[in-house]
Amino acid sequence: MFSVNVRDHMMIAHSFTGEMFGPAQRLHGATYVVDATFAGPRLDGDGVLVDIGRASTVLGEVLERLNYRNLDDEDDFAGQNTSTEMLARVVADRLMSRVHAGDLGAGASTLEKIVVTLHESHVAWASFERVMSPQ
Amino acid sequence: MFSVNVRDHMMIAHSFTGEMFGPAQRLHGATYVVDATFAGPRLDGDGVLVDIGRASTVLGEVLERLNYRNLDDEDDFAGQNTSTEMLARVVADRLMSRVHAGDLGAGASTLEKIVVTLHESHVAWASFERVMSPQ
Amino acid sequence: MFSVNVRDHMMIAHSFTGEMFGPAQRLHGATYVVDATFAGPRLDGDGVLVDIGRASTVLGEVLERLNYRNLDDEDDFAGQNTSTEMLARVVADRLMSRVHAGDLGAGASTLEKIVVTLHESHVAWASFERVMSPQ
Amino acid sequence: MFSVNVRDHMMIAHSFTGEMFGPAQRLHGATYVVDATFAGPRLDGDGVLVDIGRASTVLGEVLERLNYRNLDDEDDFAGQNTSTEMLARVVADRLMSRVHAGDLGAGASTLEKIVVTLHESHVAWASFERVMSPQ
Amino acid sequence: MFSVNVRDHMMIAHSFTGEMFGPAQRLHGATYVVDATFAGPRLDGDGVLVDIGRASTVLGEVLERLNYRNLDDEDDFAGQNTSTEMLARVVADRLMSRVHAGDLGAGASTLEKIVVTLHESHVAWASFERVMSPQ
Amino acid sequence: MFSVNVRDHMMIAHSFTGEMFGPAQRLHGATYVVDATFAGPRLDGDGVLVDIGRASTVLGEVLERLNYRNLDDEDDFAGQNTSTEMLARVVADRLMSRVHAGDLGAGASTLEKIVVTLHESHVAWASFERVMSPQ
Repeated sequence: MFSVNVRDHMMIAHSFTGEMFGPAQRLHGATYVVDATFAGPRLDGDGVLVDIGRASTVLGEVLERLNYRNLDDEDDFAGQNTSTEMLARVVADRLMSRVHAGDLGAGASTLEKIVVTLHESHVAWASFERVMSPQ
Repeated sequence: MFSVNVRDHMMIAHSFTGEMFGPAQRLHGATYVVDATFAGPRLDGDGVLVDIGRASTVLGEVLERLNYRNLDDEDDFAGQNTSTEMLARVVADRLMSRVHAGDLGAGASTLEKIVVTLHESHVAWASFERVMSPQ
Repeated sequence: MFSVNVRDHMMIAHSFTGEMFGPAQRLHGATYVVDATFAGPRLDGDGVLVDIGRASTVLGEVLERLNYRNLDDEDDFAGQNTSTEMLARVVADRLMSRVHAGDLGAGASTLEKIVVTLHESHVAWASFERVMSPQ
Repeated sequence: MFSVNVRDHMMIAHSFTGEMFGPAQRLHGATYVVDATFAGPRLDGDGVLVDIGRASTVLGEVLERLNYRNLDDEDDFAGQNTSTEMLARVVADRLMSRVHAGDLGAGASTLEKIVVTLHESHVAWASFERVMSPQ
Repeated sequence: MFSVNVRDHMMIAHSFTGEMFGPAQRLHGATYVVDATFAGPRLDGDGVLVDIGRASTVLGEVLERLNYRNLDDEDDFAGQNTSTEMLARVVADRLMSRVHAGDLGAGASTLEKIVVTLHESHVAWASFERVMSPQ
Repeated sequence: MFSVNVRDHMMIAHSFTGEMFGPAQRLHGATYVVDATFAGPRLDGDGVLVDIGRASTVLGEVLERLNYRNLDDEDDFAGQNTSTEMLARVVADRLMSRVHAGDLGAGASTLEKIVVTLHESHVAWASFERVMSPQ
């Protein structure tokens, strides 16, 4: 199994609902350093799984829709806590849609898995692993 | 599959028995930077897999029992080499006990896996992956 | 010249005023991974410049007053852009006050310099270096 | 499941064939920081999965045959793009041969998997996971 | 003294002349992860030393002229070894020219120092510090 | 001013004397990831400040005399706390002796400064900067 990984980041504000969250119930923010991993069994005719440049571009576009925003104001997340692991799923699912739309190239149709990891600090991070649905 | 990861460290002394270990047969020591990964399929009602703050606290407590010690003097490890991979298993098993005891919250009962990685330097590390036993 | 460095982090929300800032004019946030460096010419009777444990505690206390907050609502920063470099100065100055108050121990009176670096992502960071004022 | 990981690096020149690669069609180069992960279910009589020192030596020897070379001139890669993911497979397969030859010790015969990751920069890397063939 | 730092990278091929260089006399390559540090005593009216976004753009443009090239073929470096420390000076001097040209904004005229660090691997890097010449 | 930096590590045991040290009074240990920085104003005829390969070799030899040892048993440190900052000075001074002995090459005679940083964990490190004494 091959995998290709690209890294980017986004900077957002949000707050959490629930006593368990303590001071994180206040409006605060985070830089998420985001790793997107694309995994699959075969290289294409050019000898790559997915083009690293193209993967970086698509990841950047997905993050741009979240970047420099207060997530508490986003309709997409109304009534939900935008935890690190939940946001990892959001990014993974949006990347999967882009793969299905062909934006990572025809070779990407053999991808089996996308893993997205959001690093919220040097001591904490969360991931979501999405097995690719049949296209 | 979601995962949440927290990082901490411990500083221990030990020695190894066996000619293969060369100079590491002498009493020496290590800083282990410890990553604990908790993995499971579902977020709880608060939108998290496990609370990062709570996971950090429990990891710190597990490491405190090993930290600033000469492992050659610990009864728990009598007659064993406290290799990096063996210590990763010790930490993973102690974390599993804490999960079973409910110390990571009720939601943690759906966890499927704990992975513990001990980084002994910038060029070497070891892991142990524990599939959660039924509770 | 010796130096001792400790690392911690804080998670804040803020926005910037000024067209130059583009999308960063919107309310967003950041994780700042914070390195505090204490520098001086002499070790004390215990053989240390400052105690690493004590330095960590003081840094944590200084960051706690900023952590999990929307800096746009803080009186201390009214009318100012809380840029990474400006916040580095705030943290450095608050650490200097703590050194002057004796909170890093008597030996810390020989410190000559404090440098604070705030990492806002894996590709950008800013620092402020404060030469210690005479006590 | 246990794993042991060692890190080393190599510095190579190469070029890519295919319009998709844009400026990377020109002769250029890369430092690959290489992580080799050995995974298996059991520790041996010395309490280790594989000896970290021995694993480092073998990884260094495998990389030495690629290091400081222009891969465009290597017969082994004639007519192929030496993409990061393809090179990860080359290194993994050469490590597997060394395991089969007994160079990581008799205990290594229980290894189930080798994963090789090549970091080409701070924002991109690729991996290949080789399930060990029966010996 | 304030400083602002941005990171980018470039991937080049080259060879070295001189027996001392051993196997590095062969054509090989490197990824250089490049840190550019801009230092000065004063924040401008917007509360920044230099805009991080603008600094990133200028660094990217400077690196683009070197990226994906065989430096042995570049007229600028004819007859010279393109060592890591020598390339750090090249990047620093080109950044200084861009500052003098006003490309980092008017506020950048108070900058006193540029430091450029090129990381060639996880275990080696080199820097050049350029005190700004009077404009 | 140029600088060249190489990284290596050592693994030692030790204990501290003094109530301030709390649990670190017990015999424990540390991995020190060691960065050695050599700084000077001029490149030599080969276009380098010091050869990175040679610098790595010398750093490795200096660390070998400390590595895999219990520093409490070393005559060199009798009656002293082997704090991170004190050990940074020991390594810097031993490197300076090697430079003076010509082990980094004739060009190294123009070096002005050696800085040694010992990282004891992901959240703490200490440095010593030695201005080169006249030879």
